[in-house]
Amino acid sequence: MEYVNKGIDLDDAHRTRPRSELAKVAILRAASELLAERGLRQMTIEDVAARAGVGKSTIYRRWPSKGSLALEAFLDDFLSTQPAVNTGSLEGDLRKALSAWVTTVNGTSTGRSLASLIAEVQLDPEMGFAWRENFLEVVRAQHRQIVVHAIARGEIPSDSDANLVIDMLFGPAYHRLLHGHLGLTQEFVEGDVAMVVAGAKAGAAVLSRH
Amino acid sequence: MEYVNKGIDLDDAHRTRPRSELAKVAILRAASELLAERGLRQMTIEDVAARAGVGKSTIYRRWPSKGSLALEAFLDDFLSTQPAVNTGSLEGDLRKALSAWVTTVNGTSTGRSLASLIAEVQLDPEMGFAWRENFLEVVRAQHRQIVVHAIARGEIPSDSDANLVIDMLFGPAYHRLLHGHLGLTQEFVEGDVAMVVAGAKAGAAVLSRH
Repeated sequence: MEYVNKGIDLDDAHRTRPRSELAKVAILRAASELLAERGLRQMTIEDVAARAGVGKSTIYRRWPSKGSLALEAFLDDFLSTQPAVNTGSLEGDLRKALSAWVTTVNGTSTGRSLASLIAEVQLDPEMGFAWRENFLEVVRAQHRQIVVHAIARGEIPSDSDANLVIDMLFGPAYHRLLHGHLGLTQEFVEGDVAMVVAGAKAGAAVLSRH
Repeated sequence: MEYVNKGIDLDDAHRTRPRSELAKVAILRAASELLAERGLRQMTIEDVAARAGVGKSTIYRRWPSKGSLALEAFLDDFLSTQPAVNTGSLEGDLRKALSAWVTTVNGTSTGRSLASLIAEVQLDPEMGFAWRENFLEVVRAQHRQIVVHAIARGEIPSDSDANLVIDMLFGPAYHRLLHGHLGLTQEFVEGDVAMVVAGAKAGAAVLSRH
């Protein structure tokens, strides 16, 4: 496919867009595969370019660093496994969201990628900013809707702090993923959810009460 | 001080012991300082030996790697800031334990060392084993006593899972330390404690109920 005609062809934009989009998809897929296979430390831009069939400059034009590319590749993959939930109850929503997370990360290459990206964040402050902005805030915004819905249903007090509820649900899960001291079992998921539901229903997530 | 007399002098052992103990203390102190000043990645065994005034071989005789030395240095420092608590109530104990942790790590070099050690654990599986055995399990054993005492006082059901309660308390705190998305504020401490107390008192930490 060639783009010789540089005149006023309205189809031009539509024809060229797919090519750069296809390159982007190929780069992100290659980065995602290499991240899963080798981990962030052993993944190189050269390898990603070779596998995606593009030049290195095509990658650097869009992503300033290996970390930013790995992060975008990971985010796309990860989000596709974490659907928005709306089961009709706080308990059902929290269980579904935490179960989806555990299924995705427990003993999988996605889980190892997540852990290695969090490790990178500790060692590279610039990556920390991108991590919070492009990964954590995207996932958390989705999860906070669970609390918004529970408030709308009247299950928990209207001034419950959504951030606290979400940290109480996912904090212990990240803790077990990163430290590996105990398993991300079904029993853990049920216990974690029960603790958060009981606390939120008792009004413990209303910060002004403390 | 010289040890010329190699005969049966009962005081001999007592005189020589302090020397190796002093070296150990000096090495751990030097490692602790360098870890705080530079972080694990920039700390070298050469620097530790120079600052402690010992040869590198003295260090390698006791610690097989930089990671194992950093971990022991960190553990000694860290534990001294985390006293066992026994205030007479579950709420008081959880608040005191979490507050001590937050005071020690929030915006401090100890907090940065803790984060960099956790990062290292993700990248070095051998270190992960030592981390769980020599750091996490030591701290957790102390914290589990809080749950044991609450059960003994009849505040929470006797079959409450101490590991779950401790993960629910500290997991969200580690989560904020490592991701940096929200602060380790006094408000957070109070909310976290209130959530865990309400959940545990409602029996949500009894795993067999789920």
